[in-house]
Amino acid sequence: MNFTTIAIATLLTSSLVASSLTSDAKKAGLKPIPNSDTELLKLIDNPKNPITTEKVELGKKLYFDPRLSKSGFISCNSCHNLSEGGDDGLSAAIGHKWTVNPHNLNSPTVYNAVFFDSQFWDGRDPDLEKQAQGPIQAAPEMAAKKEHVVNTITSIPEYITEFKTAYGDDVKINFEKITDTIATFERTLVTPSAFDDYLNGNSNAMTDTQKDGLKTFIDNGCATCHTGVGIGGSMSAFNITNTYKYQDVGDFKGDKNGMVKVPTLRNITQTAPYFHNGQIWTLQEAIKEMGRIQLGKNISDKEASSIEEFLKALDGRKASITIPNLPASTSKTPKPDIN
Amino acid sequence: MNFTTIAIATLLTSSLVASSLTSDAKKAGLKPIPNSDTELLKLIDNPKNPITTEKVELGKKLYFDPRLSKSGFISCNSCHNLSEGGDDGLSAAIGHKWTVNPHNLNSPTVYNAVFFDSQFWDGRDPDLEKQAQGPIQAAPEMAAKKEHVVNTITSIPEYITEFKTAYGDDVKINFEKITDTIATFERTLVTPSAFDDYLNGNSNAMTDTQKDGLKTFIDNGCATCHTGVGIGGSMSAFNITNTYKYQDVGDFKGDKNGMVKVPTLRNITQTAPYFHNGQIWTLQEAIKEMGRIQLGKNISDKEASSIEEFLKALDGRKASITIPNLPASTSKTPKPDIN
Repeated sequence: MNFTTIAIATLLTSSLVASSLTSDAKKAGLKPIPNSDTELLKLIDNPKNPITTEKVELGKKLYFDPRLSKSGFISCNSCHNLSEGGDDGLSAAIGHKWTVNPHNLNSPTVYNAVFFDSQFWDGRDPDLEKQAQGPIQAAPEMAAKKEHVVNTITSIPEYITEFKTAYGDDVKINFEKITDTIATFERTLVTPSAFDDYLNGNSNAMTDTQKDGLKTFIDNGCATCHTGVGIGGSMSAFNITNTYKYQDVGDFKGDKNGMVKVPTLRNITQTAPYFHNGQIWTLQEAIKEMGRIQLGKNISDKEASSIEEFLKALDGRKASITIPNLPASTSKTPKPDIN
Repeated sequence: MNFTTIAIATLLTSSLVASSLTSDAKKAGLKPIPNSDTELLKLIDNPKNPITTEKVELGKKLYFDPRLSKSGFISCNSCHNLSEGGDDGLSAAIGHKWTVNPHNLNSPTVYNAVFFDSQFWDGRDPDLEKQAQGPIQAAPEMAAKKEHVVNTITSIPEYITEFKTAYGDDVKINFEKITDTIATFERTLVTPSAFDDYLNGNSNAMTDTQKDGLKTFIDNGCATCHTGVGIGGSMSAFNITNTYKYQDVGDFKGDKNGMVKVPTLRNITQTAPYFHNGQIWTLQEAIKEMGRIQLGKNISDKEASSIEEFLKALDGRKASITIPNLPASTSKTPKPDIN
């Protein structure tokens, strides 16, 4: 056997191992973000609220516009910060008048939330369109009345023009149209990663350590819940009555079965602190605690490190986002009210 | 006289009028943002903290990074929002724990602040480098101790690498180096406008109404204080003991002579509410009130409207800014403290 033969044999083995691992990953329910734009669009679009360039651009402005909040100080981006992991890096969200989320709930990331089967920790809303209506109105978040939001937008001629461009001259600019438009922008916030490239056929996209981590992740059963394209977000699986470290969920009750939605693991290195109560700060601890509570097993330090290596392969490529120039208020724009 | 002759005569008259008006504007002390990059750089650079691409890019990240604040929730961009007019649109700034600025002071715009001779409403700091140290540490603003800021940055390997790239491997990342870097980014936030194009020789850059407004502005003496490249920011001229509408300045005392710095009029259509106490919401009212207090004259509605038309020519062209991807925190990064 000469050098070339050995090299070819090695390549074949490596390719077979890769092929076996991708096959295991797919069998475990893990799915990549498609690398075809057509396939991706099918996955992220909403037939009832189709994605168009005009809606995305307008939605981006609305997402960054703090005038949608009662105070004029808080925008969607305040707690779902696109410069960070699409969240706020706090244990529990802060909102209007510095109110801490009354359920001590951690702000989930907006990146890849389009892949979730439901929204919010208790999964109470079916999609981003419905979700976007919540925090704007919630008293401890943006605290705005629907009329405040509509009156703000319709007081600004540039916004009216952009709504007409996006929806036609007959558009009725109501609260739902505004939140639908924000949701359209959010639907585009997907971050393909090395893991997706790997599942899509590039066997060199992940390092060997990351591949080992993926195997550890699957072998330990993590993919039972963290599955699908969202690598989470497709089911509620955490029983709120479980006893776990740093348990502190205020009066949060989970969904109707007392269950909490499984969060995405995409960009997880950027979204500490972890868990729905944001009490765990390192991936090591989060992994081991999940093993104990959800899988009934002690995950060793070595295994946890291995899984953590895989999770790094889920750091996604964010699209370049230019900050919007928000149109100026007019004399008809409702005044900010910080009280 | 045939049509062509009339046309040429009209052009000549128009050109002479333009030339006379630009000459009046320059005589009144108004100066354009230069359209030559070399000339502009001379104006915005700080020899003690020279502008480089690496520092600007790093400074942009720091400007948008809420982890510099004690709470982890407030960044420079929270109150000097680059999507808005470089300010927050509120009467008085809100900061840590929703604290209202104790002097009821309005957040000034960061756009074109590089042209000011001094910073803050009382002009207490000479430049953006010194200014950037203030709000980060002020208890009612970002409320961070110097050590918090330094420990945050030095806990993040990507930031260390970027400081080395910007300043060399021997860089000492202290508080001043961090705020100097933020200031470098802020130095680039200049917004050339139609008025600048006009003063730089394009006689068609402003509309006739705007030109009339410029004349009204000069004739009424507005340019006495709103002058220089900043069209403001070069002197303190408002006596705090003046009685004016909506007077509400808490215990703010102005500078050592009881004077308040003249704000820039650049992008003024985007930075309501007005005055250092942010109590006046329309340009009409602001113009007339300034006439009464500062110029001792009643500016008519017609004159105020004319001046307002000129002010619209000060809406600047903002550079396209891509939102930064902030590097992830590590286990060594100080935890956010919202209390």
